Amino acid sequence: MGTLQVALADRSYPIFIGCDTIQQDVFAPYIHAQQVVVVSNTTVAPLYLDRLKNTLQGYDVSAIILPDGEQHKTLSVMDQLYTELLQHRCNRQVTLIALGGGVVGDMCGFAAATYQRGVNFIQVPTTLLAQVDSSVGGKTGVNHPLGKNMIGAFYQPQCVVIDTGTLTTLADNQLSAGIAEIIKYGLIQDSAFFEWLEQNMSALLTRDVAALTYAITCSCACKADVVANDEKEAGQRALLNLGHTFGHAIETAMGYGTWLHGEAVAVGMCMAADLSVRQGWLTDDDYQRIKRLLGKAKLPVTPPKDMRVEQFLQLMALDKKVMDGQMRLVLNKGIGHAVVSSTFSMDLLKETLAAR
Amino acid sequence: MGTLQVALADRSYPIFIGCDTIQQDVFAPYIHAQQVVVVSNTTVAPLYLDRLKNTLQGYDVSAIILPDGEQHKTLSVMDQLYTELLQHRCNRQVTLIALGGGVVGDMCGFAAATYQRGVNFIQVPTTLLAQVDSSVGGKTGVNHPLGKNMIGAFYQPQCVVIDTGTLTTLADNQLSAGIAEIIKYGLIQDSAFFEWLEQNMSALLTRDVAALTYAITCSCACKADVVANDEKEAGQRALLNLGHTFGHAIETAMGYGTWLHGEAVAVGMCMAADLSVRQGWLTDDDYQRIKRLLGKAKLPVTPPKDMRVEQFLQLMALDKKVMDGQMRLVLNKGIGHAVVSSTFSMDLLKETLAAR
Repeated sequence: MGTLQVALADRSYPIFIGCDTIQQDVFAPYIHAQQVVVVSNTTVAPLYLDRLKNTLQGYDVSAIILPDGEQHKTLSVMDQLYTELLQHRCNRQVTLIALGGGVVGDMCGFAAATYQRGVNFIQVPTTLLAQVDSSVGGKTGVNHPLGKNMIGAFYQPQCVVIDTGTLTTLADNQLSAGIAEIIKYGLIQDSAFFEWLEQNMSALLTRDVAALTYAITCSCACKADVVANDEKEAGQRALLNLGHTFGHAIETAMGYGTWLHGEAVAVGMCMAADLSVRQGWLTDDDYQRIKRLLGKAKLPVTPPKDMRVEQFLQLMALDKKVMDGQMRLVLNKGIGHAVVSSTFSMDLLKETLAAR
Repeated sequence: MGTLQVALADRSYPIFIGCDTIQQDVFAPYIHAQQVVVVSNTTVAPLYLDRLKNTLQGYDVSAIILPDGEQHKTLSVMDQLYTELLQHRCNRQVTLIALGGGVVGDMCGFAAATYQRGVNFIQVPTTLLAQVDSSVGGKTGVNHPLGKNMIGAFYQPQCVVIDTGTLTTLADNQLSAGIAEIIKYGLIQDSAFFEWLEQNMSALLTRDVAALTYAITCSCACKADVVANDEKEAGQRALLNLGHTFGHAIETAMGYGTWLHGEAVAVGMCMAADLSVRQGWLTDDDYQRIKRLLGKAKLPVTPPKDMRVEQFLQLMALDKKVMDGQMRLVLNKGIGHAVVSSTFSMDLLKETLAAR
């Protein structure tokens, strides 16, 4: 089992990475009272809840099962979650455990941030996307019909327990969605990792354990490093948003849950690369490499046909990176080098949004 | 204008206390971008919103008006608040200003804590209760049908601007409700202040500016001190909850908004004193002094006739101070000395709950 550390002073925590970690004795130091509530969903609970409960013998464990899918990452499902926590008479010493993908992690984390003004929680991500991205760094929250992730909090877990064994039951499109975020790390700051991905994509798609573990470890190390330097996204952390301004607009426009987050981010990264080429910041060769790698990962590379330029612009104006009315985008200056830019040309952006 | 400081390292902030402060140039250092949204309610906005807007000329100011009353401190009204913030295209640089009583402050503060994962806010409390208690210390949140203040966050404002002039328009029962929390400070840690209140209650009730300013300043100084030592209520801060476990049960049982919070706390403090007497921790003489002072402040001193012991116990079991199933109550060991106790007798508690 490998361990990484997210260095955040008194809020520092470890990320454990290995096979069958949810059946191992890693949890005890991070649970400080008897009461434990596992928050999971209707897909993951039948597969892994009993296994986790078995590991947690000796605690008073109950479970709350959410509906599965991004369309349920809402304030009204949060409200049900609060109600169940109160019905279970959970007090401030309770430990919540998120067992599931990004939606479960984001919601359980936000519940932890806000139930009785804050309780402890542990992330046990079971999708590749959650393992390489959303479970690390403390971004929690829910969507609003007008914009993705608009309600939430920065709230760090006690630890993250990644069990690579859970990837054996993951649907193919979910695997690809996770790979999108893995490719993102290569694109923003590690061209060697990008090249490794070009060479090892088939191994990832066939779920080779060594390849997956390497990719997860590289991704988490990158994320942990960025988060340690900029927990609340005052600067550098915004780079992790490559493709997300475009992607969130697609997710919101199409209806949450229609596109997987990772699929929307894949298209978003292509659009960011397209604009970067138009700006003269990226060669067409590199743009083709990006599209090729995403395509190899079985990810979409073009935006929904029926999304108009105006709709994109309207939704992108609500992006959390907007500053005093000025849109900011993460763009590429070569593979392995991303920048947060507010100096791109609005005309070129419109060309990117119109291109299919 | 007086100034107190809440010392919380990089989250420290000042409390400004004076007459007509909302018309003075105190806000500028605490607003970091053009966008400002005043959150107020249907009672306070007609009285003070224009005055505040006038002070904020030069900013891009809009207002969100909430319904008035504790019964509206809900997640569903929060949801409307989020929607309006998004419709106003508020970004992360926005400053929210809470102009109103405790409900407005708690909700605006929670919106600030959770909108786009956190934006700045300023407290401008216009009720006595908000001025002496809820606007200071960063407790924000909403009620849940199963328990008061069960959803929320610790989130500190940029500053607190107390305008004693706003007390001239306050309803009598709201004035009394605020005095309940003022008496609380005397009871928990300052017997000299309690005596001052015994001597100056008429001056407070006739809204003598000097007396009110003194009482507000003493109360805020006490609160600022406690919060600086124990921001997240790991210990000492729980003392500020004197009367609140009983009081919250009354508020929840009677339906939020039926009793004012300060009224329920007044009864709660009497019940805590009653139990303290039964425990042998408080003399009957002191108990009578407490009841007399609360009565003089035109506050209720007996619980609702139709609340049963079982109902009290059930609601009190959800109190945020409960630890591993053990109820903890703030009780008096004399006037000016309170303790958090889990060693009180459950039989004596039942006697207190049954007594009328």
